Amino acid sequence: MEVKRLGIIGTGLIGASVGLAAKRGGVEVVEGYDFYENVREAALERGAVDRTVITAEEVLDADLVVVAVPVTALRSVLSDALGSSDATITDVGSTKSNLGDTLTSPNFVGGHPVTGSEAHGPEHATADLFDGATWFLTPTAQTDPERYRLVHGFVSALGATPVAIDPQAHDQLVAVTSHLPHALANLLVNQAGAARVEGHEPLAAAGGSLRDMTRVAGANPRIWVDIFLENTEAVRGALGEHRRRLEQLEAALAARDAGFVARWIGEASENRRRMLEQAFPDPGELQQLRVHVTDRPGVLAGITQALGAQRINIEDFELHHVSPERGGTLTLLVTGEGEAERAAAVLESQGYGVVVSPVLAE
Amino acid sequence: MEVKRLGIIGTGLIGASVGLAAKRGGVEVVEGYDFYENVREAALERGAVDRTVITAEEVLDADLVVVAVPVTALRSVLSDALGSSDATITDVGSTKSNLGDTLTSPNFVGGHPVTGSEAHGPEHATADLFDGATWFLTPTAQTDPERYRLVHGFVSALGATPVAIDPQAHDQLVAVTSHLPHALANLLVNQAGAARVEGHEPLAAAGGSLRDMTRVAGANPRIWVDIFLENTEAVRGALGEHRRRLEQLEAALAARDAGFVARWIGEASENRRRMLEQAFPDPGELQQLRVHVTDRPGVLAGITQALGAQRINIEDFELHHVSPERGGTLTLLVTGEGEAERAAAVLESQGYGVVVSPVLAE
Repeated sequence: MEVKRLGIIGTGLIGASVGLAAKRGGVEVVEGYDFYENVREAALERGAVDRTVITAEEVLDADLVVVAVPVTALRSVLSDALGSSDATITDVGSTKSNLGDTLTSPNFVGGHPVTGSEAHGPEHATADLFDGATWFLTPTAQTDPERYRLVHGFVSALGATPVAIDPQAHDQLVAVTSHLPHALANLLVNQAGAARVEGHEPLAAAGGSLRDMTRVAGANPRIWVDIFLENTEAVRGALGEHRRRLEQLEAALAARDAGFVARWIGEASENRRRMLEQAFPDPGELQQLRVHVTDRPGVLAGITQALGAQRINIEDFELHHVSPERGGTLTLLVTGEGEAERAAAVLESQGYGVVVSPVLAE
Repeated sequence: MEVKRLGIIGTGLIGASVGLAAKRGGVEVVEGYDFYENVREAALERGAVDRTVITAEEVLDADLVVVAVPVTALRSVLSDALGSSDATITDVGSTKSNLGDTLTSPNFVGGHPVTGSEAHGPEHATADLFDGATWFLTPTAQTDPERYRLVHGFVSALGATPVAIDPQAHDQLVAVTSHLPHALANLLVNQAGAARVEGHEPLAAAGGSLRDMTRVAGANPRIWVDIFLENTEAVRGALGEHRRRLEQLEAALAARDAGFVARWIGEASENRRRMLEQAFPDPGELQQLRVHVTDRPGVLAGITQALGAQRINIEDFELHHVSPERGGTLTLLVTGEGEAERAAAVLESQGYGVVVSPVLAE
């Protein structure tokens, strides 16, 4: 069996993008319900659903129903839907162990596409949203294997990579990879914001590291209050482990233990290498090039054209604004010292001074 | 008086870049000493110094001497130089209160250019390194005002923006804006690296937030062990304050205090807005566009040319590789919803699906 008729409950950015991606993937009919009439009508206008309905029940005779409602409403919507139909049902919520009895329904397959946390409505939905994304699925021992295969195939057809994981393990994993980083970003920016040092404002003196580390700070409170409170147990576990590691570092600094600090940095370097291996075949070969650029139009196109003409393979490319007066910083990653030299030569021929350094410490 | 003759002690990346920037700024003669012969000869070859000398004493009759040696050697080099000459002396070390008596010498003006922490030798030195950078200067009540003015003018001539600050305040400021972020990046990547969750490797499941937050993790141990140990007191203060804020959050989650979490995220959003105000005149207007791109040559040039042709003003531009199979993510920042719509239209006409969202939560 495959999905010919799809029902969507909740037609915001994620739900409407599921509709668009499903239609791109060959699903015949998509029906959509949203609590808010303007949201379901916007999804229709965007072409994300073929028709809208005015109660959630009306989508429940589809081959598959995707529930894409806010995490606080999720449990009751799922429970109603599972109680009143025999449809296969999946969701897109970012936590799972809070779903209670729902998890052990044979008709339910929990899901979580990892796409970032925008929540900007169906007007900006796109069929590409899930291309290349991890999509966690959380089947249990009670899940009907046929229904699991249906959802697995559907998610793949949307362009995502399904990854099966136990619901509790899922919540611990996202606590470490997403919720803890968000918490630390908020803690850090609030500490920097609160500390005035003899009239100097740390936020004004923020270097690249503070800016990189607080990019997700203050993210949409409507979503994140719920995430922290729905995944409280796993988040508290991750924060507690962070506190233990922090206390260890504090003790090492109090003892001026240079050996500890060196091992700790070395371990971080090795862990970062393992993380980069997911994205780059040989992270040890990565070289970073950094140039200072002025704040004027055409700079970006000039640089990318010159590099493209030399067929230099750019792995990562970042242009970060510092200020209108001070211009910005361009950072490129390339693989191999030879490629770094070629890229540096191109940039130097355009009058830029280039600083080259390996991404990972030797 | 201005600097006509410059002496440099330590001709690595920073010292040699000072030489290049000084020559660009009109300094007549630059003499360089480095403990390692190959390093001083490389600086000469790069054109960063006009001549090399084989003892540090030989540069001490210059108008200004810049000491750019590793932070552990700094105190003794400065003390020798100040004891045996009447030259005006400055340094480029990233901590200041560890310099002891040196700080109260009338001839000394402490300095710290904020340029990132590469340490890759004189071969990659560049005259542009300090353009637009903050350069902290730490004069004290004992500092000769004439000499302070000399260093202030010199630093400006290198392209940097001098910012005067008390030495202790400097160390507290960089502890919060740089050393604490580095410590948290190391703690986070080590926690993620140590936790395997039912066979799943958190580092492999790293989303954008974990990657952004660990970019500085594992940075050059030769530099960072010294920084953590030289600025121990201020770093311990910043870590202690972080621990208190962490414990507050843990208590709020234990009590399921939604009000606290909402206020805490709101405060983070406001602090992030204040930080972004340094870089952007109106951060509340910033819109983020995100598209998924495949991993093939020419993508970058194609996109920047199309945007350039429409004269769309890109504030920030990032292309991040996810994996060879999954391609990457392009994130653009533009100011204003109108500009965002125009940029989205350009990208959509090239076949990309675009997700638009405001950078700061409303």
